[in-house]
Amino acid sequence: MTPRNLPRLGATALALVLGATAVHAEDIAEYMDFFEPLPYLPPIPADNSMDQVKIDLGRMLFFEPRISASGVISCATCHNPALGWTDRIDRAVGHAGQVGNRNTPTVLNSGFLGAQFWDGREPDLEGQSLGPIQADVEMNMSLEEAIQRLKEFEVYQEHFATAFPDDADPIRAENVALSIAAFERTLNTPNSPLDRFLRGDVQAMTDQQVEGMKLFVDAGCVACHNGPALTDSNYYRFELPSSKDEGRFLVTGDEYDKFAFRTPTLRNVAVTYPYFNNGSVDNLHDAVNLMADQMLGREFAEDENDAIVAFLHALTGEMPAVEIPALP
Amino acid sequence: MTPRNLPRLGATALALVLGATAVHAEDIAEYMDFFEPLPYLPPIPADNSMDQVKIDLGRMLFFEPRISASGVISCATCHNPALGWTDRIDRAVGHAGQVGNRNTPTVLNSGFLGAQFWDGREPDLEGQSLGPIQADVEMNMSLEEAIQRLKEFEVYQEHFATAFPDDADPIRAENVALSIAAFERTLNTPNSPLDRFLRGDVQAMTDQQVEGMKLFVDAGCVACHNGPALTDSNYYRFELPSSKDEGRFLVTGDEYDKFAFRTPTLRNVAVTYPYFNNGSVDNLHDAVNLMADQMLGREFAEDENDAIVAFLHALTGEMPAVEIPALP
Repeated sequence: MTPRNLPRLGATALALVLGATAVHAEDIAEYMDFFEPLPYLPPIPADNSMDQVKIDLGRMLFFEPRISASGVISCATCHNPALGWTDRIDRAVGHAGQVGNRNTPTVLNSGFLGAQFWDGREPDLEGQSLGPIQADVEMNMSLEEAIQRLKEFEVYQEHFATAFPDDADPIRAENVALSIAAFERTLNTPNSPLDRFLRGDVQAMTDQQVEGMKLFVDAGCVACHNGPALTDSNYYRFELPSSKDEGRFLVTGDEYDKFAFRTPTLRNVAVTYPYFNNGSVDNLHDAVNLMADQMLGREFAEDENDAIVAFLHALTGEMPAVEIPALP
Repeated sequence: MTPRNLPRLGATALALVLGATAVHAEDIAEYMDFFEPLPYLPPIPADNSMDQVKIDLGRMLFFEPRISASGVISCATCHNPALGWTDRIDRAVGHAGQVGNRNTPTVLNSGFLGAQFWDGREPDLEGQSLGPIQADVEMNMSLEEAIQRLKEFEVYQEHFATAFPDDADPIRAENVALSIAAFERTLNTPNSPLDRFLRGDVQAMTDQQVEGMKLFVDAGCVACHNGPALTDSNYYRFELPSSKDEGRFLVTGDEYDKFAFRTPTLRNVAVTYPYFNNGSVDNLHDAVNLMADQMLGREFAEDENDAIVAFLHALTGEMPAVEIPALP
């Protein structure tokens, strides 16, 4: 049974339950086909299996501030578990209080993305994870120094040796990347109201959220925001007031990519404000209006906007329960 | 039955179990009388009762970075649960990467201290908790602005109203202080090997740790490091190489207090390195030698130093299991 089949089962259930009420089950079934429930795990790369030892090591490294120049900034500083695994400020604040150019994306469900960073400059979490350690406005530490610091701890010597038993020199940047990426692939948020709705729990979304779901499809939002994480991981240009960031162009040098950014996931969008590449939009109503104007060339009426925002709230899933590791 | 009675019970148990073995139970009983098992809770002030709503609010505020000027520094940045509720760097790093003058003390068991901060300038956690928010090298935010930020969140409006139901204007600095202090009083580490030993579990400490305990008493360390948190919360001057910090003198203006600091707790000292007011000493062996020289005017032989360090490791208790709060 593939996830694609589940909406149909849900529709049958809907028809049985709702009968001839105001909600037309068969009609909704067509809409539901545009969506997929979020799996509990994203695709696992063949060269980075998910074992508990590696995941636990990745969790330690994710919370480890000693691999930053200041000694107080870790991945978890900007990807803060208390704040939807992001920071809820406009643009990231890193080493020595420097402010980066872009808004911190959430780590939640990032294993479902086809490319990492706003500009997609890394294909996967393994590639992404080493970036912020080295960025001078983030953790500001060379990988050589980071590895040296980790090697000073017996606990890390043991954990790396256990996680990478065939590696003669296990404390290496590549293994840091593999571990952090393996941990991040556990940070998923299944069972949102949408997911439960798609699986047949017809009460999981309100009528307004169902209306929003239909509008989301009919207006064309779903053209880019699709798949389990509601992103096609593709790049689109648009004009964000207050931003001069050339986005994907800085990666490809292709004029076509100027001001283009990767479609962000809409999973947990209600708890991962503010929005867009520079975090300049604070609330979902404004974000939806901006997207309507820029990507769809239309305006939503106030009740339509409200319905779509209500639907976006139905994308908030169960947060992963992560224990803070005891670091050496 | 007071905690003071427990060591005697333990000693009786010891005598029964050990009989005429190498360890002289009655002899040890005298040493045990110098110590107290750590209670599960510190003294609770009459004007700040511990209720769950207030504790939960305090936990949110403790992890809340939006009450810092940068938006990324919270109490938990320097009092990091992953690092023994301290930061394991020499001196605190705060706003814009500024380095403070002093080492971050752990929050663990801080409710047992008779005074807060290295210089004891605040008598209790209520007084302490608002300091770092305002300090320009730490969170760098005025209380007025912090309160304003909290008021913007409906979730905080609800939580403060529930925690302080008789207060017409519950989001106030005083209530922030009460909540954070109530939360901090839950951060205790009972059941260390010493505690279990004192309660009669004769296997809880190694022979070397027992030797260390006896030396700790005989040499006089216990004169200042006593009570449940192994501190008398009093002030003593000593010469720390590399430090020109005048300590308690900066609070009292009394010449007698020059270079004096409050006796730090030894609870969890093995996991709250580095040591002393400027964090200039990395390991316990050096710390013990420095104290022997400065406070006792003597030297420990290597095996004595090792035994005391082993005993200090017996002061590492059970870390509090704190769930990261979901912030608004």
